Amino acid sequence: MTYQATLLIELKPGILDPQGRAVEGVLKGLGHPVESVRVGRVLEVVLRAESEEEARALASRIGAALTNPVMEVFTLEGLKALEGAEGGR
Amino acid sequence: MTYQATLLIELKPGILDPQGRAVEGVLKGLGHPVESVRVGRVLEVVLRAESEEEARALASRIGAALTNPVMEVFTLEGLKALEGAEGGR
Repeated sequence: MTYQATLLIELKPGILDPQGRAVEGVLKGLGHPVESVRVGRVLEVVLRAESEEEARALASRIGAALTNPVMEVFTLEGLKALEGAEGGR
Repeated sequence: MTYQATLLIELKPGILDPQGRAVEGVLKGLGHPVESVRVGRVLEVVLRAESEEEARALASRIGAALTNPVMEVFTLEGLKALEGAEGGR
């Protein structure tokens, strides 16, 4: 079966976010009343698994593989079956 | 009042995602049963506005300013009041 996992990878609170600072500067330069901006990554991963539990475990392993544990945290934002959810091959 | 807007900026479907392809290659190389990966950006923007409507309109303008309309789409994923929601200064 095929599942789509939505992984959110963000910097840990307190870690300097240069990209966020740059965007913040641009928005303030455009006159927007912005106080702060933090930028993260969202990944839509289509993966194959036999069950939802297996898909959830796999998505967590993938999130861990793509995250720098010193500076980042990841969250499994969503998991949905795409096709063949009824055990079809 | 201060609000936090969560903006999601993704490539339009059909647009080649080199970053996603790179991540896909790494995950396949690690042996994960992955079919595809697409990478997007999520921005947490703290902004000042007098009301929720104004905050929503401002967040949309900011999203539009940060999005390349040819290749990207943005979604206002969330908007929440942070402090002084009761009209406090």
